[in-house]
Amino acid sequence: MRATVRLAPEIDGDAAPAPSVAPRDHMEAARLPHVVVVGGGFGGITVAKALAHAPVRVTLIDKRNYHLFQPLLYQVATAGLSPAQIAAPIRTIFRGQKNATVLMEEVSGVDVAAREVLTGASRVPFDYLVLATGARHSYFGHDDWEPFAPGLKTLEDATAIRARILSAFERAETERDKTEIARLMTFIVVGGGPTGVELAGKIIEIARHALRKEFRNIDPATARVLLVEAGPRLLPAFPEVLSRDAKKRLEKLGVEVLLGQPVSACDVMGAVVGGTQIPASTILWAAGVASSPAARWLGVPADRAGRTIVGSDLTAPGHPNIFVIGDAASAKSANGKTVPGLAAAAKQQGHYVAQAIEAKLSGRATRKPFRYTDFGNLATVGRNAAVIDMGKLKLTGFPAWVLWSVAHIFFLIGFRSRLTVAVDWIWSYLSYRRSARLITGASDPPKPSS
Amino acid sequence: MRATVRLAPEIDGDAAPAPSVAPRDHMEAARLPHVVVVGGGFGGITVAKALAHAPVRVTLIDKRNYHLFQPLLYQVATAGLSPAQIAAPIRTIFRGQKNATVLMEEVSGVDVAAREVLTGASRVPFDYLVLATGARHSYFGHDDWEPFAPGLKTLEDATAIRARILSAFERAETERDKTEIARLMTFIVVGGGPTGVELAGKIIEIARHALRKEFRNIDPATARVLLVEAGPRLLPAFPEVLSRDAKKRLEKLGVEVLLGQPVSACDVMGAVVGGTQIPASTILWAAGVASSPAARWLGVPADRAGRTIVGSDLTAPGHPNIFVIGDAASAKSANGKTVPGLAAAAKQQGHYVAQAIEAKLSGRATRKPFRYTDFGNLATVGRNAAVIDMGKLKLTGFPAWVLWSVAHIFFLIGFRSRLTVAVDWIWSYLSYRRSARLITGASDPPKPSS
Repeated sequence: MRATVRLAPEIDGDAAPAPSVAPRDHMEAARLPHVVVVGGGFGGITVAKALAHAPVRVTLIDKRNYHLFQPLLYQVATAGLSPAQIAAPIRTIFRGQKNATVLMEEVSGVDVAAREVLTGASRVPFDYLVLATGARHSYFGHDDWEPFAPGLKTLEDATAIRARILSAFERAETERDKTEIARLMTFIVVGGGPTGVELAGKIIEIARHALRKEFRNIDPATARVLLVEAGPRLLPAFPEVLSRDAKKRLEKLGVEVLLGQPVSACDVMGAVVGGTQIPASTILWAAGVASSPAARWLGVPADRAGRTIVGSDLTAPGHPNIFVIGDAASAKSANGKTVPGLAAAAKQQGHYVAQAIEAKLSGRATRKPFRYTDFGNLATVGRNAAVIDMGKLKLTGFPAWVLWSVAHIFFLIGFRSRLTVAVDWIWSYLSYRRSARLITGASDPPKPSS
Repeated sequence: MRATVRLAPEIDGDAAPAPSVAPRDHMEAARLPHVVVVGGGFGGITVAKALAHAPVRVTLIDKRNYHLFQPLLYQVATAGLSPAQIAAPIRTIFRGQKNATVLMEEVSGVDVAAREVLTGASRVPFDYLVLATGARHSYFGHDDWEPFAPGLKTLEDATAIRARILSAFERAETERDKTEIARLMTFIVVGGGPTGVELAGKIIEIARHALRKEFRNIDPATARVLLVEAGPRLLPAFPEVLSRDAKKRLEKLGVEVLLGQPVSACDVMGAVVGGTQIPASTILWAAGVASSPAARWLGVPADRAGRTIVGSDLTAPGHPNIFVIGDAASAKSANGKTVPGLAAAAKQQGHYVAQAIEAKLSGRATRKPFRYTDFGNLATVGRNAAVIDMGKLKLTGFPAWVLWSVAHIFFLIGFRSRLTVAVDWIWSYLSYRRSARLITGASDPPKPSS
């Protein structure tokens, strides 16, 4: 999920609207239709908030207690931000919305016939169900690569990747063998989408700037950072001119960009890229995405990535009261285009579904199909550049980076997060340092078998 | 380790002095005496920094890559601060000190005869050795209590305790059984020292304020917080008048203070306090301290808590070139008093040891024994009160809390940490919210056997 530049923080815990329906009378509240939303990402939060004034009870279920601002997750993985800066407690977001209940539970399935969501110990009945369960990374059938090439979807992923990157330099400092030092200081990022581009750009910045003068036996600036993409260009969702710009900028920073070179193996010693074995201790996976099992729960068709193929009204086929949105869904916009896996798309779907539920409740005529409005796409490239595609307007370099920074700070939930992220970014920009250079947890990279 | 109010940030990564000895000539550098410091806490960092201008090579070894500001660890455990705000990379602290090398390795022992420190894979020879390896918590022979009553010494401890406290409320919200809800919402803090007092005060604040209006099935304000102390009063290291003040303030906040009541059992269902079983899902251990195994490594006598009994010059008996300082040592001050386990004491010892090593190198006469200068002791009590003991000057309540806050921000390493901690504290004070309410990691509390 990635943010776009649409400047309107629709999800905001600080400004929760007063609900028109305050179910103080429990007898009355119990008679209200029950909307269950699974998943507290951009899509799920938007649906639940948009129903604040509807005559419904809303229950939002997530296995985490926080909403994660995923577009900045790579900054936690690269020691720029702390987890709490990009995560807001879901309960706080709904503090003022009296028709909403938040449950921290892991959903294990859906009993479609009984209209119940199954969690660990209980069954939650629903009248309307919204599955906004997101995605994990996919290894295209090579799940055995995961221990050697972790992906980036959760805060735990991010702190583990952070520990792995920083530990590689620490190990190199204590190592004597030159071949092993070179392997420890080689970083391979697999996948040339925005996350891969952002990770590669930040790792080279850490090596060349943040760690400068801090080691005595190695020179971190000699680290190799490889960005590997199986397709012909970086950022395939962007116009080709921006792909070329991003490649040029990354190479200027020192990243080795390998295009048209698929990865055919990952193990403890490194990766095979385009048929060549590259010794590397740190491989990061930013390539494939696999949807959560919403389609399997419902017993409906999914696309190759596991996403539920939804109708033009975002319902699952044959289930007019069950919606699937965000990365869990494969949806077509009314203009025929495929809805992209962006935060903005999930939010738009969330608003659409809230309105669809209200329309169904009031017995109004069938609504128009969902239409995705494209406000653009953006990605950062290294320290102070970005590429932005807003249709006719294409921005690159420093102005794009400033716009990117402002947009992302604006979209963050909560005043405090915005303030501290701004402080950290300004500090980091001026000092070249990273705010959160901690190796925590049991996050050792796999050890060489030698 | 606790900070005192002495207002001088002696450890500061932002203001590393330029070393007079820059061992660019490796042949010359190799001939310099080698001082190995084990442990990057207050004591170890102080020794290594104080030797910046000495004609020595310094190697600081720590199993972590960061220096931890332990006096604020309880704030991470209670969701007020993020880990990165109270931890600074050790490498950054020594970035500008060219005679210092930092190694991230776990020390497993000392070969006294060969004058070598043993790490996982290598041996580090030394001319002078400083062991500043700190302490862990002790269960007084009941190590089997640890899974049910975790202690607070590391960042991992802190995030695990944070997850446990927050998860207890989450579980209560989804629970139907009233007895189990009551058990989930009972928190027992064992130990009435500063850490116990601070934890209990913050947990009641979370329950009564931070979580207000966020739950629909439970009322977090009904949570019970018990502070249990085996001795006759809280804060035994403080004057009795301050102990009484702290107790009164905690009770006003809603904490149940149980004095003279030892804990005789801890298990998955709760604790036995003063002979009575108290059902509780969260028990936190802030009672005993056990030193790291420095004495065992050296084969020298230790006190009951495992601390190396050092001489008046802080050397281990029979080893004039090996010093033990901080929580790893049991030391007497020249005025006959026992040196307390405070950050200020460890720093003073660090300065003393650096001077002692320089004196030995220059062949000067025997130095004076170590003398601890007591600058006072302080602890926070709940939301906006503290107790401060500076000998004749005793402060309590809000003025003490303001002084405490200023002192702690001042002692933090790095401008950025000071700024963001100040922002978070002001924000938290005004909004009653907590900055870092994340449940991360595999930190489930033990499940009831039912």
